[in-house]
Amino acid sequence: MKLLTPNCVIRQIIRGFASMAKSNFAYVRQFETEDRCLPNTWIVVRVDGKGFHKFSEKHNFTKPNDERALSLMNKSAERVMNDFSDVIIAYGQSDEYSFVFRKNTSAYNRRASKLMTNICSLFASSYVFHWTEFFPDLPLLYPPSFDARVVLYPTEQNLRDYLSWRQADCHINNLYNTVFWALVQGGLTPKDAHLRAKGDSSEKNEILFTEFGINYNNLPEIFRKGSVLLKQKVKETCVKELKGETAESSPYERTVTQIHALHRDIIKRAFWDEYPHLLSNK
Amino acid sequence: MKLLTPNCVIRQIIRGFASMAKSNFAYVRQFETEDRCLPNTWIVVRVDGKGFHKFSEKHNFTKPNDERALSLMNKSAERVMNDFSDVIIAYGQSDEYSFVFRKNTSAYNRRASKLMTNICSLFASSYVFHWTEFFPDLPLLYPPSFDARVVLYPTEQNLRDYLSWRQADCHINNLYNTVFWALVQGGLTPKDAHLRAKGDSSEKNEILFTEFGINYNNLPEIFRKGSVLLKQKVKETCVKELKGETAESSPYERTVTQIHALHRDIIKRAFWDEYPHLLSNK
Amino acid sequence: MKLLTPNCVIRQIIRGFASMAKSNFAYVRQFETEDRCLPNTWIVVRVDGKGFHKFSEKHNFTKPNDERALSLMNKSAERVMNDFSDVIIAYGQSDEYSFVFRKNTSAYNRRASKLMTNICSLFASSYVFHWTEFFPDLPLLYPPSFDARVVLYPTEQNLRDYLSWRQADCHINNLYNTVFWALVQGGLTPKDAHLRAKGDSSEKNEILFTEFGINYNNLPEIFRKGSVLLKQKVKETCVKELKGETAESSPYERTVTQIHALHRDIIKRAFWDEYPHLLSNK
Amino acid sequence: MKLLTPNCVIRQIIRGFASMAKSNFAYVRQFETEDRCLPNTWIVVRVDGKGFHKFSEKHNFTKPNDERALSLMNKSAERVMNDFSDVIIAYGQSDEYSFVFRKNTSAYNRRASKLMTNICSLFASSYVFHWTEFFPDLPLLYPPSFDARVVLYPTEQNLRDYLSWRQADCHINNLYNTVFWALVQGGLTPKDAHLRAKGDSSEKNEILFTEFGINYNNLPEIFRKGSVLLKQKVKETCVKELKGETAESSPYERTVTQIHALHRDIIKRAFWDEYPHLLSNK
Repeated sequence: MKLLTPNCVIRQIIRGFASMAKSNFAYVRQFETEDRCLPNTWIVVRVDGKGFHKFSEKHNFTKPNDERALSLMNKSAERVMNDFSDVIIAYGQSDEYSFVFRKNTSAYNRRASKLMTNICSLFASSYVFHWTEFFPDLPLLYPPSFDARVVLYPTEQNLRDYLSWRQADCHINNLYNTVFWALVQGGLTPKDAHLRAKGDSSEKNEILFTEFGINYNNLPEIFRKGSVLLKQKVKETCVKELKGETAESSPYERTVTQIHALHRDIIKRAFWDEYPHLLSNK
Repeated sequence: MKLLTPNCVIRQIIRGFASMAKSNFAYVRQFETEDRCLPNTWIVVRVDGKGFHKFSEKHNFTKPNDERALSLMNKSAERVMNDFSDVIIAYGQSDEYSFVFRKNTSAYNRRASKLMTNICSLFASSYVFHWTEFFPDLPLLYPPSFDARVVLYPTEQNLRDYLSWRQADCHINNLYNTVFWALVQGGLTPKDAHLRAKGDSSEKNEILFTEFGINYNNLPEIFRKGSVLLKQKVKETCVKELKGETAESSPYERTVTQIHALHRDIIKRAFWDEYPHLLSNK
Repeated sequence: MKLLTPNCVIRQIIRGFASMAKSNFAYVRQFETEDRCLPNTWIVVRVDGKGFHKFSEKHNFTKPNDERALSLMNKSAERVMNDFSDVIIAYGQSDEYSFVFRKNTSAYNRRASKLMTNICSLFASSYVFHWTEFFPDLPLLYPPSFDARVVLYPTEQNLRDYLSWRQADCHINNLYNTVFWALVQGGLTPKDAHLRAKGDSSEKNEILFTEFGINYNNLPEIFRKGSVLLKQKVKETCVKELKGETAESSPYERTVTQIHALHRDIIKRAFWDEYPHLLSNK
Repeated sequence: MKLLTPNCVIRQIIRGFASMAKSNFAYVRQFETEDRCLPNTWIVVRVDGKGFHKFSEKHNFTKPNDERALSLMNKSAERVMNDFSDVIIAYGQSDEYSFVFRKNTSAYNRRASKLMTNICSLFASSYVFHWTEFFPDLPLLYPPSFDARVVLYPTEQNLRDYLSWRQADCHINNLYNTVFWALVQGGLTPKDAHLRAKGDSSEKNEILFTEFGINYNNLPEIFRKGSVLLKQKVKETCVKELKGETAESSPYERTVTQIHALHRDIIKRAFWDEYPHLLSNK
């Protein structure tokens, strides 16, 4: 917010009024650089919690997964998707979230700084805004921060591999964390727990099953797969309220975009076959 | 937060454990680009409210200036300065804030994306976090977002001109807004108010004085000059509490960094002469 | 050429010997920036003559096309293609040449500066080196310079459209130039020639045919289509010469890469169907 | 060279004539990126020979220094300086040359690609163009190539340190090479020569003095210091030739820029004190 009048008016005023100030200082704008993303590539903005190890300890997050914290991440991501109509899919796990713009988006004229800072700040402010919905009894101790980056992927395969990389990361970390915390809660020191948890995948499954009676594959999918946010257009029936009139109002239909979360495999082809519009650039 | 164990351990595990996943997907990291800022230049990160015209209307901000809103901006900026020890001065006005790193900072290895997103998200989350302190009776309706950019300035003169540019902008907008809103509150339509307010500086001062009895120069400096945040090292006397002991504890001194706000001219040389350390790169 | 010994030795020496110099000055390397091209995109380097309007006048190039000059351009491009094994196709017209690297090239680690400057300087030095082959009686008056740029194209369609754009540009300029120069050589002033030549395509063809008896489509394809350079692997029969021996030597086969020039339409699909390896990233 | 008519005319024609071609393909220009250099910083373009170890062997360059080759490098650099009026100083040694633009140059709108490719290609074409002047009896076997990079330096100190770095490099390499080749020419194997030459500076001086009677400090300065190119404005007396007239012509004065080479220390302050205009940005 600069002024309460239209931009064209502002420019007019500033020109007429502040010619001295402008002529002396405004040259500094030339030091700004343009950072437009290469056209016709998938733009991914990944948001990542800063110092969330400490943050989760200070707020007593449940180990190895805190469903409230994951839901708050999802809620914040939903806020971002609602504001950025060209984000077609988002994927989150742990304290990170990736937002994928359609290939030919012209949001913010594809300027990387604009995209990453707007998304990152909206994500962060939403996290605080919605905190009490998910942690009604736990006050937020301090405002968290996130970093963000822009990465470009030229092909469908590159984009799918990126998302597969994040989901594989989710799996690897979650399996390790599940075993590690079961062992710690069972009485081992962190060091010993780590030594036992660092084996390969089948060893970890074995420990969980024989020592704790846990079948890893039965654990909630949100922990094992992370969260996929998709948009869906649905039809709503509305009734227009006519203010200050007694006339009856006729109901009408409109299309709205809803965001829903899935917790499923996005590495395999099946997911992409089911949602072909995601890669079709339509 | 990725794992609960040190990074070196994480790498070890991932190597041994998830070689399959890694070998297939991890190549996508190569698509990330490096964006280190040129060494030995002043790094400025400017945060700017997105859609704050609408935001201020929805929250009934006082016109032309809402002191609560400005104080909340200052509080959020203070949070940022506390977290970034290499930010030596910050300047804010309206819905924007500029943070200046010392020339030779190596914060985040001078990576532009890291700097702007961490600052921008901390600013935004702080804004929401501290909202109720400044607007105790006014619920925040939705989470705000900000954009941010990194600009580099090679010389002291360029840096000072940048800050002068922002303060001149503050002055120009505030004078106009003060006149405009006085006229509107006095009964003019926005259009007519604008027509009268768009004159030069002396015309505006004249309108304020003769028609509203306002001496512009007597208005609060925070409105006319914006806010400058500086760090100050102060000595504190502490008393160490010795837990579970009855022995007396001796008081001791420590140096802490305090942030204080000024509302004064930073265009003229006097300010910089008074705070020579700001430009000395010490 | 820095030294006559291996790099590892150089480093050893410099470390032991010039520690003073190093510690004081070598930090300046940190001011260099990395400019790697996005992976998995087509890298195009386009070289463009600087001030070739004047250059062509000073050297009395034949108007509207000088076949010697075009051949020299092609020869220089051939030099570049020979040195850069990952350049799979090149397209040239007038005083410009575009070199296309295969999508997954790792030449110079995909660093844009390295690619464009090496290609541009080799092109320029080759142009001078081969000058007398094409202009045996015309001394080169001064060394020409070229600029170059790197452009990335993510998809086959984008790449084909880029090359189509250059070939369409060749056609447009050549048709105009052909008409313009026919009229000028027929006695019109440049200004009047321009006025007549600036009509649409069919008007230009009409002028050429009715006034000069020229069927534009019968003009040499090198003028109308530009030049496409492709690589071809061919088998050669060699005879190894055994030095200082009288034993007979047996002939053997080897595969060598030859570069040949085509002058044909690359806008239409037929060309690409004929050379499917160009787009297959093999 | 695109057409033989002014640019404004070209644009007019292309607009009216080739609208089809334009609308389909010209979008590919959007994939080009801008790479303007940060304002108010020293722009250095360093040109570096590619594969000059091999090049010098193939052309039998004298070891450890070939004065003809160094003079050809200087001649090529002179060409560049003549074409780029904003290059205020250049420094060369071995097969490299650095060109320093004045801080506030707007040459090519400060676009890095334009600056480095134009300089690099002009350097390369000049090298071939002037070859026979310096190697009258030695045919050039193949066209050499060079790479180039742009580096920005924000302060005088950084710029001076950059040039000091290159001159220190010259000294280190030349002292080593001088010893190494003296030993090789004295009968040692390269390996043994290296073992003896790799000591510290005083050891190398000792070997040269006691074994070869060479006082290193008496060797030509062009070898030990490299070459510094500076511009000098000088007054020339001219006589205007009046064509086709018998009237006497009166002599008049004009100022021309001459480039002269120095071979002296640029690390110490004395040089810069002597040429204060170099750093004054005038």
